Amino acid sequence: MSQHDRQILLGAFIPSAGIMGSAWRHPSAATDSFRDFEHYRWIAEKLEAARFHALFFNDSVNVDLDPLALARGPNSVRWDPLVLLPALALATRQIGLIATASTTYNEPYNIARRFANIDHLSGGRVGWNLVTSLGGGENFNRDDHIQHADRYERAEEFYDVVTGLWDSWADDAFIQDKASGQWLDTDKLHVLNHHGKHFQVQGPLNASRPVQGYPVIAQAGSSDAGRRLAARAGELIFTAQHTVEQGLAFYQEIKQTAAALGRNPEHLKVLPGVSTVIGRTQAEAQAKYDQLQELQDPKAFLSSISRFTSLGFDLSELPFDSLVPLPPEQFDTNTHKSRQKLVFDLIRRERPTVRELFNKLTAGGHRILIGTPESVADDFQEWFESGAADGFNVMFSGLHQGIADFADGVVPELQRRGLFRTEYQGQTLRENLGLPYIANRHQGAQA
Amino acid sequence: MSQHDRQILLGAFIPSAGIMGSAWRHPSAATDSFRDFEHYRWIAEKLEAARFHALFFNDSVNVDLDPLALARGPNSVRWDPLVLLPALALATRQIGLIATASTTYNEPYNIARRFANIDHLSGGRVGWNLVTSLGGGENFNRDDHIQHADRYERAEEFYDVVTGLWDSWADDAFIQDKASGQWLDTDKLHVLNHHGKHFQVQGPLNASRPVQGYPVIAQAGSSDAGRRLAARAGELIFTAQHTVEQGLAFYQEIKQTAAALGRNPEHLKVLPGVSTVIGRTQAEAQAKYDQLQELQDPKAFLSSISRFTSLGFDLSELPFDSLVPLPPEQFDTNTHKSRQKLVFDLIRRERPTVRELFNKLTAGGHRILIGTPESVADDFQEWFESGAADGFNVMFSGLHQGIADFADGVVPELQRRGLFRTEYQGQTLRENLGLPYIANRHQGAQA
Repeated sequence: MSQHDRQILLGAFIPSAGIMGSAWRHPSAATDSFRDFEHYRWIAEKLEAARFHALFFNDSVNVDLDPLALARGPNSVRWDPLVLLPALALATRQIGLIATASTTYNEPYNIARRFANIDHLSGGRVGWNLVTSLGGGENFNRDDHIQHADRYERAEEFYDVVTGLWDSWADDAFIQDKASGQWLDTDKLHVLNHHGKHFQVQGPLNASRPVQGYPVIAQAGSSDAGRRLAARAGELIFTAQHTVEQGLAFYQEIKQTAAALGRNPEHLKVLPGVSTVIGRTQAEAQAKYDQLQELQDPKAFLSSISRFTSLGFDLSELPFDSLVPLPPEQFDTNTHKSRQKLVFDLIRRERPTVRELFNKLTAGGHRILIGTPESVADDFQEWFESGAADGFNVMFSGLHQGIADFADGVVPELQRRGLFRTEYQGQTLRENLGLPYIANRHQGAQA
Repeated sequence: MSQHDRQILLGAFIPSAGIMGSAWRHPSAATDSFRDFEHYRWIAEKLEAARFHALFFNDSVNVDLDPLALARGPNSVRWDPLVLLPALALATRQIGLIATASTTYNEPYNIARRFANIDHLSGGRVGWNLVTSLGGGENFNRDDHIQHADRYERAEEFYDVVTGLWDSWADDAFIQDKASGQWLDTDKLHVLNHHGKHFQVQGPLNASRPVQGYPVIAQAGSSDAGRRLAARAGELIFTAQHTVEQGLAFYQEIKQTAAALGRNPEHLKVLPGVSTVIGRTQAEAQAKYDQLQELQDPKAFLSSISRFTSLGFDLSELPFDSLVPLPPEQFDTNTHKSRQKLVFDLIRRERPTVRELFNKLTAGGHRILIGTPESVADDFQEWFESGAADGFNVMFSGLHQGIADFADGVVPELQRRGLFRTEYQGQTLRENLGLPYIANRHQGAQA
């Protein structure tokens, strides 16, 4: 096993809205981060100094018009990750940069081109988190959001077109012989000529091959279709798992599925999401968490979750310490299937009170760790060594202090234990993650 | 008249392919600028130090598969200007950044969002050169490129949707009252609900209003439809004009058309394109030009131009010193109408030999000035003072030396004459161009 395989991978989930939930109400919160890049520069520099593998930016292409959600939360306006990435490529030198981009509301030619460009700009540090989007049809010439099954069918073909376009030019196509005037060897150009159900794309791409061959592909779908795509194409797998046993089961299943498709299972890295609140003592961590929770508006949040998951009743109208009723047996919507399943499973498994469910879900359905650098490192070590994770996608409150607490507390503790590197080992994101360079599919044909 | 009106505006046309034509064969040429950002950083820093108003990046979304064009020229691979801009926003502090983006092969929601974001990132220094593209359908689910008339109809509606989305949020919508937990005033949100022929876009945009209200709108269309759009929406008008008389006629026509539409004609700035080759003496300038021309492959170039303009005969097969035959009376294609008209007019007006036409057209149809800083300044002064131009969109060979020659020679000469500023006067591109901030169309409704 290489050095990479034996150490924990760390990604940082950074909200493209700048801040998560009601953390903006914290006295220390900068509220203009949705349009002030300096917030992101600070985060990137801090987490690069901590040797994080990558920053990961979420995205959405519409605004939730629920009046309460609009009025109370910072999620209506956000950065386009594909604008943040080129800027961060200049502001950093080593950390990986992963942007979410929708296969439902983009054209594959534009996406292939943009990621290839940013891979050149950053010296091979880019990843694409391929999503099908949870909504947005109303802004893209559709009355309704595209159905789940259609979205994934389109996503699969979208991926094929994008990777095909990335292979348009052999690495040595550009001869650039000044004496003869020959710029390129036209034999080393491969025109895609894709004719599929969703796309007709001739190619070639008007960008040379990405530095990494392909940018790293991240995938976070939890539905059956999402997992199929992850097993086929995903290299970084983001997932929400709440127990080591669940994590282990997911880890083994996704790697076995990938192996059955002929992939090397070590070329998929599984990073469960985990939200952290760190203190010098457990009591201090708990106090920080409590302070953040007190800023929440449970009514707006619970009402939004009830709508979002088609729960069938409004959590915000129940007494805060009453037991949450069981959700319907049948899923009655296609729209937010994986998030719905997560919430329904959580209710069935833990039978929480409304308050307990609220506390669990404020991390976006991810596990919340409240503790000291040592206790958080213990938890990471247990998951990692039991085979439930290759690393973690760490979520913060969006506050600088929460990021500093992790970078200055948990990272040194993991390093002390030999579980986390002290220097970047490679130049590209692939090299740092222990993922292979992707050779051009036409390479053999040119030999 | 303000200071702005009395001085020349200077834009720099920077090829997104890194270099123009066969200048890549020059001994000093860096050939990897299509994927090496440092080339652009150097240019941006040099032209910012020279107080240029803006860098202007062209674009295209496909590759010309003509084998000769492919093999000989550097135009197959190029940067996406919307990747260059965020990086250049960090690499510079004052110069304007103008990206070409197609209304034919993008979605208005994505474009509105990206330009709003980059305007925030750059502190209000962004412009959008709105084009309908000369080709690309084969990469965007179409067998053929969309017809000219349809492209402009779509472009008009695209512009309406984008500007409507930019007005989604009042400037003071974001209250961000930490005590009460109110993030925004929902009364200051305006949902677009656009239902048009080409687009159904509900909105709101998930980005706050651009710093400049709207990014500066640049337009370069020379066809009737292009001029209509420029008169209605354009603020920076790029144009190819060969004589002061032509320039004056164009200048007056576009401003009168705009005035007839109710616009203040001073809010359109006309910048004819001009290619420059500068020497300390006329002979040195001519030698530099001759050296660049010797690197050209006339056969590939003339063959490409003949195809591109549907000339009806192949210029590359004619003797180099023979007279160019007259082109057909009727334009028989919709595809490259404005460029075709420019070439046909040039042939009819000047009755050039093939060699003369070749020399004229290697600047992309723009005027070529070969001379000393003084003679170029004389020319600029004549155009500017006669009312044929508010400034110039200056084209270089793509070589660093050509840019340095202009920045270190012509700019000081213009400054010495009081025709060009010595410092940036404003913070935003609008302020520097003497264009007004665009108020939100809903502003009155909120009073």
